[in-house]
Amino acid sequence: MAFSASLFYPSPNLSSTKMPPYPLLFRRPRSVSLPVRCSSAAASSSFDLRTYWTTLISQIEEALDAAVPVRYPESIHKAIRHVVLSPGAKRAPPIMCIASCELVGGLRSAAFPAACALEMVHAASLVHDDLPCMDSSPLRRGQPSAHALFGVDMAILAGDALFPLAYQHIVTHTPSPDPVPLSVIPLVLTEIARAVGSTGMAAGQFLDLSGAAAGSEKEILQVLEKKFGEMAECSAVCGGLLGGASDQELEALRRYGRAVGVLYQLVDDVLMESNGGTGKMRSNASIVKAVGMDRSLELVEEVRANAKKELDKFKDKYGEKVLPLYSFVDYAIERGFVVEGRGLEASSAAGGSDGSSETFSKGD
Amino acid sequence: MAFSASLFYPSPNLSSTKMPPYPLLFRRPRSVSLPVRCSSAAASSSFDLRTYWTTLISQIEEALDAAVPVRYPESIHKAIRHVVLSPGAKRAPPIMCIASCELVGGLRSAAFPAACALEMVHAASLVHDDLPCMDSSPLRRGQPSAHALFGVDMAILAGDALFPLAYQHIVTHTPSPDPVPLSVIPLVLTEIARAVGSTGMAAGQFLDLSGAAAGSEKEILQVLEKKFGEMAECSAVCGGLLGGASDQELEALRRYGRAVGVLYQLVDDVLMESNGGTGKMRSNASIVKAVGMDRSLELVEEVRANAKKELDKFKDKYGEKVLPLYSFVDYAIERGFVVEGRGLEASSAAGGSDGSSETFSKGD
Repeated sequence: MAFSASLFYPSPNLSSTKMPPYPLLFRRPRSVSLPVRCSSAAASSSFDLRTYWTTLISQIEEALDAAVPVRYPESIHKAIRHVVLSPGAKRAPPIMCIASCELVGGLRSAAFPAACALEMVHAASLVHDDLPCMDSSPLRRGQPSAHALFGVDMAILAGDALFPLAYQHIVTHTPSPDPVPLSVIPLVLTEIARAVGSTGMAAGQFLDLSGAAAGSEKEILQVLEKKFGEMAECSAVCGGLLGGASDQELEALRRYGRAVGVLYQLVDDVLMESNGGTGKMRSNASIVKAVGMDRSLELVEEVRANAKKELDKFKDKYGEKVLPLYSFVDYAIERGFVVEGRGLEASSAAGGSDGSSETFSKGD
Repeated sequence: MAFSASLFYPSPNLSSTKMPPYPLLFRRPRSVSLPVRCSSAAASSSFDLRTYWTTLISQIEEALDAAVPVRYPESIHKAIRHVVLSPGAKRAPPIMCIASCELVGGLRSAAFPAACALEMVHAASLVHDDLPCMDSSPLRRGQPSAHALFGVDMAILAGDALFPLAYQHIVTHTPSPDPVPLSVIPLVLTEIARAVGSTGMAAGQFLDLSGAAAGSEKEILQVLEKKFGEMAECSAVCGGLLGGASDQELEALRRYGRAVGVLYQLVDDVLMESNGGTGKMRSNASIVKAVGMDRSLELVEEVRANAKKELDKFKDKYGEKVLPLYSFVDYAIERGFVVEGRGLEASSAAGGSDGSSETFSKGD
């Protein structure tokens, strides 16, 4: 399936048709794959998004495969490999990291180890979130969850082992001091620690479990920001750091990433409610239940607009290099694009053809 | 209770009395506190070990208190504080880290953040090891385990949050580039990642759970090395790195630390078996059950001798600065010394007056 790029996502036409602002959200069967429109500033582009995604995914999976070999003791490493190398994984955090690095002129090699580490951290958080005492999910990406296959103890240990492995991978694999200055690596490590820690994703999971997700619009958005926005924010910021972004650019990437993470979950919620309340969302925080569908769609539009506004700041300076980051915003709405890449025919680069919504969110 | 220093632990006298090599192990009631003999090269010493330990513990607990404040969301931070600030904690990893740093001429301030981070990592590993699906321990240091107080989900999250907090603490608090060169911090982070990861403590916990602990002497020692030796090894090596130790010194500290970690657990096992099989050991790996008491005592002596042999290499160059590290070896055998320090009257610096053996081991 081809990628196509148009000036903007078709929302400008929507007011004249009196359609809901996201017609594709409701018209298309969820299992249908759609082409991605890229909200680039360029009306036409020579940038081949499809090649960009497929090449990256292939490279990331190759690097991950090498990073988590089977060694003694075998069982724990098999569990780790199951978690990290799952064929249904979307690789959204590493792709966003690399795209952010390359956006600001960094080399792919500079961001690659951190990108892989982000996927490890993401996988670790999913394993623990799936546990019976957490979100109690027997499936992940259409396959048995780690605890269902290997036992709860092993799933906890696999997650525990992946966090330090991610840190170790960055330290030992990031090319430094050239092209990555030695001073940047601690910043990247701190950014990841902040994102996954007690005020980040762990706080989000706690708030979700503790019922804060049944609160006000503000409370629910806070859960979504912490549980889902942190990983995307961290991915974009790490890429920016490794690519040499300015402080101003880093802040734009931070706001962009956080918005994208929240956007996916908001759209997940809207899709689930439009499907009669059944779906694969992995949070108690239902924005639709709390504020209704109309307000939820307004929020989707607000968050989407915020994400794009941040990217627009990069257009003049970096041109079409911003396209990969726009594609995350588009995919949040459209979902079904399929990259027929290595081992991905039944899945996708940033979304599964099975309607799975996991990217920065926690659906299976 | 005073510390006293003598040339060597009294084993040289044992052969003439035909007593078992560790008479104190069997003669004393486990709840009796004993003075520590320091196996220093110096027959007499002006070094005040008691002040060294009490001052350090007080400083460490103050720093930990500041490092884990209660903030939003409060519940998860209260769980983290419960785990990190437990008054029964022995603070063995941070003390070994600082003692190793100071041994080779480093400043205490250089090692202090990493020392606190090691305590956080240690606490995180204990929280997860105590879970019902792991070692299923309702108590830790005489108090309810984190999962018993806060629930299994919160205990998992508290552990998950402590690992990244530890990394963040090192990066943000270590004084660098002076006195700690920027290049050293990644080495420290990698050392900790290696110790807690899938070939370190996580592997040890897996092997213990999976029954490898019921194997041969070699297999059991491997479990003990991974489950208990790694934290002590890591503590000594991190201290050495931050103090500017040479490669040769780092290797000696590595072997010393690993030996001490294993030694504590071997002695725990001997004590437990001599108490009729009841005790607080938190491992399925019983060396006494596997090889008998006589061979176990031989192993204790071998490992203890190895630890001392490594320290002896530092005596000529560093003199009495090696005393704090000798005290870990002595305490492994003697256990009961009490430091009447801040909040520690009912406990000890490196061992509880309740007979608790947790230092690098996992007893409560």
